[in-house]
Amino acid sequence: MLRLVPLGAAVRQLPAGPASRARAWAWAWPLGPGGVLPRRAGGSGWRPALKTPKGTRDHPPAHTALRDRLLAAVVACFKRHGAAAIDTPVLELRETLMGKYGEEAKLIYELQDQGGELLALRYDLTVPFARYLAMNKITNMKRYHIAKVYRRDNPATTRGRYREFYQCDFDIAGQFDPMIPDAECLKIVHEILSDLQLGDFLIKVNDRRILNGIFAVCGIPESKFITMCCSVDKLDKVPWEEVRSEMVGEKGLSPEAADHIGEYVQLHGGLELIEQLLQDPKLSQNKLAKEGLGDMKLLFEYLTLFGITGKISFDLSLARGLDYYTGVIFEAVLLQQENDHVEEPVSVGSVAGGGRYDGLVGMFDPKGRKVPCVGISIGIERIFSILEQRMKASGEKVRTTETQVLVATPHKHLLAARLKLISELWGAGIKAEMLYKKDPKLLKQLQYCEDMGIPLAAIVGDQELTDGVVKLRDVATRKEVDIPREKLVDEIRRRLEP
Amino acid sequence: MLRLVPLGAAVRQLPAGPASRARAWAWAWPLGPGGVLPRRAGGSGWRPALKTPKGTRDHPPAHTALRDRLLAAVVACFKRHGAAAIDTPVLELRETLMGKYGEEAKLIYELQDQGGELLALRYDLTVPFARYLAMNKITNMKRYHIAKVYRRDNPATTRGRYREFYQCDFDIAGQFDPMIPDAECLKIVHEILSDLQLGDFLIKVNDRRILNGIFAVCGIPESKFITMCCSVDKLDKVPWEEVRSEMVGEKGLSPEAADHIGEYVQLHGGLELIEQLLQDPKLSQNKLAKEGLGDMKLLFEYLTLFGITGKISFDLSLARGLDYYTGVIFEAVLLQQENDHVEEPVSVGSVAGGGRYDGLVGMFDPKGRKVPCVGISIGIERIFSILEQRMKASGEKVRTTETQVLVATPHKHLLAARLKLISELWGAGIKAEMLYKKDPKLLKQLQYCEDMGIPLAAIVGDQELTDGVVKLRDVATRKEVDIPREKLVDEIRRRLEP
Repeated sequence: MLRLVPLGAAVRQLPAGPASRARAWAWAWPLGPGGVLPRRAGGSGWRPALKTPKGTRDHPPAHTALRDRLLAAVVACFKRHGAAAIDTPVLELRETLMGKYGEEAKLIYELQDQGGELLALRYDLTVPFARYLAMNKITNMKRYHIAKVYRRDNPATTRGRYREFYQCDFDIAGQFDPMIPDAECLKIVHEILSDLQLGDFLIKVNDRRILNGIFAVCGIPESKFITMCCSVDKLDKVPWEEVRSEMVGEKGLSPEAADHIGEYVQLHGGLELIEQLLQDPKLSQNKLAKEGLGDMKLLFEYLTLFGITGKISFDLSLARGLDYYTGVIFEAVLLQQENDHVEEPVSVGSVAGGGRYDGLVGMFDPKGRKVPCVGISIGIERIFSILEQRMKASGEKVRTTETQVLVATPHKHLLAARLKLISELWGAGIKAEMLYKKDPKLLKQLQYCEDMGIPLAAIVGDQELTDGVVKLRDVATRKEVDIPREKLVDEIRRRLEP
Repeated sequence: MLRLVPLGAAVRQLPAGPASRARAWAWAWPLGPGGVLPRRAGGSGWRPALKTPKGTRDHPPAHTALRDRLLAAVVACFKRHGAAAIDTPVLELRETLMGKYGEEAKLIYELQDQGGELLALRYDLTVPFARYLAMNKITNMKRYHIAKVYRRDNPATTRGRYREFYQCDFDIAGQFDPMIPDAECLKIVHEILSDLQLGDFLIKVNDRRILNGIFAVCGIPESKFITMCCSVDKLDKVPWEEVRSEMVGEKGLSPEAADHIGEYVQLHGGLELIEQLLQDPKLSQNKLAKEGLGDMKLLFEYLTLFGITGKISFDLSLARGLDYYTGVIFEAVLLQQENDHVEEPVSVGSVAGGGRYDGLVGMFDPKGRKVPCVGISIGIERIFSILEQRMKASGEKVRTTETQVLVATPHKHLLAARLKLISELWGAGIKAEMLYKKDPKLLKQLQYCEDMGIPLAAIVGDQELTDGVVKLRDVATRKEVDIPREKLVDEIRRRLEP
């Protein structure tokens, strides 16, 4: 049994009265007494711009209902795999985020220095997770985290790309035998994309060690590995010729070195490609590449046992943008089906991504102790855009509320009767609404049921009150039956059984 | 049927390669090539402070599981009352928040000017809701919104007071007959606090119009109404004498005027007090006070029909800190029970609050059109602190995962068997885990079940594989039974039925 905790003196959240730590107020706004807006006559005068910040949006009820459904499916999968949920602050110390994102770091939102610590908005959920592990000295954890992250990127809102967006992350931290957690991450991506019935998809897999091995055997100095990754990463958008000319023109590679890289990074396949590269005379001499290829082979063995290799492609052009990856990397893309034409196509590419980052936690640990990690991020915003577009195309409507019964009255002076009846229904756990008018017209009340998709109306008039009954109306069929008041709750439950 | 939307060219979220809009980078950090941290030998060198920003915290799995349970109860109530969910950005234009919070505005987190719009973090969910209504020209809506808000307040983390905290808001917007939506808001607070079994509570109710009427009949000029509210608002923490001396000493009231205010604001009661004040020779002459008292009487009538007046107190000392309230205001407090002693008491006062704000939407509307609103905010963080404290005191443990079965093996060389079996279980929707080791010891696997509260273990060894069975172990009783493989899923489901 839970016991009541005695309460101390009541404490209010908000300080009242003049603030002792008032400071120069930076906003150029003419404040009235007490800091309130000066009264304006007849609605004239300056008013704030009516918008959300660039690249952000409100989610109206239909959005939110659809998104909640989508997130519930993702969470169900994460829980099926035994993950616990954590939450971390939207704000992080700037120094926590520093040096983790390479060139992308310029997209981090910084907070103004208002005295005290220098803060920024989180850029992803991975760096906060690594900080959390190091701070709490956790060396072993399987967690999911669904929350908003912030990037001062150029928004492309029609493609589901925003400055504030949800990430859905699942990560496994700990020192384990190779590729077992990595294989589970890919299994999860496979399950989620299958569950959501988004159509055909492909999960591309590669390994940073293989890429670095390729660069090494092509004679690229280590200092250029990251910028080479950036070039290779563009191969999903532009043809090899363009990437090649960037390598030679902008990045100073010899045409021979570039061509050599090109021979490798345009390859993709399955187990047979791994075997082939393991026999490659140059690559097999490189320690990193050999490690990566060996693990890739193991990964494919495990994925075969999971029965999902049909949707996995070992793709040497996959590089991923973020710096912190150290091993396996992956990215899931939806495949366009040839016979499918919809008027306004939504361009979404990658719908999930992730990889192994064995060095990130060590960057936070005071003694540099490493905690190997591998994780995935589900691109929920893009998936949402696809589902939303489909709903629009199909004309399907989402109910935004779950109300089961509208409590209605057929004539005037019955507000008290409605308040009493609705209170009974709420007490029995029935989802019920009434119109907030003293004397609403019956037609208006029934119209509200139709607009909102409420299946039942419970109608009480003088006659019903006298007879001790309630008229229960099926909104779709318009059929009405008198139900004894004491049996109303049971009858409503019976009607709403699935 | 949903149809697949054809995809255009793959688009990556993150720009790769040198940024075209690179800008002077403000962080004083020695970056290596590509913006990454320079490599450090043997873990030496500078490392970031391992902490979350002041006044914020991480929520580990046990917190998050408890909080999710708490939020589910609150959401169930909001849905029972027919509310739809919306979501708005954490970021708002600074001008959206300006002039809405009075003296508290100095607690708003501002973002650095990084070019583009000037932004701030939302301070509550009410102002964004009003902005949302005005922006979308919505004049009628019942919504809930559960999300984090940000206040640069002095944190008091032991009392559940943070700089980043959840708000759970329910609001009704629209032009309706008086006090019907207001009464529903109080009903919701009553239902939630009862459902959560937090112990005895009291909901204090007052009206800004009554307070302003009192100030007027005591001869206070209108310009001092807000600062008077701030003084009165302290009466839940300090005795009247202190408030009186602040009014006379700091705020320049005559002792007579202060005493006169004191006679009113120390009153509290029910319907009989409302009747008494309606007869008060001075107050009954004041238009505002009369309106407020008339509505308060109506409110009590409706609350009587809901059967909840036993926990409602008309309390003239209730003033509320925020500027935007225009009518009814309320606040729920938990009552300390005399016979209840726990070693470390948690001091929480107010656990819910709210009121009517009929002018806020009009501050955003280009033509100043008003949309009357009334709403409540459930103090989920404080309630969480109480529940957490109770769990600690009782020694009760929350399960942080929902795993039903651990797939285990009794000896070596059986990783493939585990991977195949767990894949079958996941496919059937069973929540299953396995250890990420090639050859884990059986004892370690069973220990993991006990540590994590996993009720079942499905064990496959060479003998079981030969016999086509799986050994199903009840972790609590240690009883093991061989189940034919094809019947395993059904047997697990049967055992886990509630």
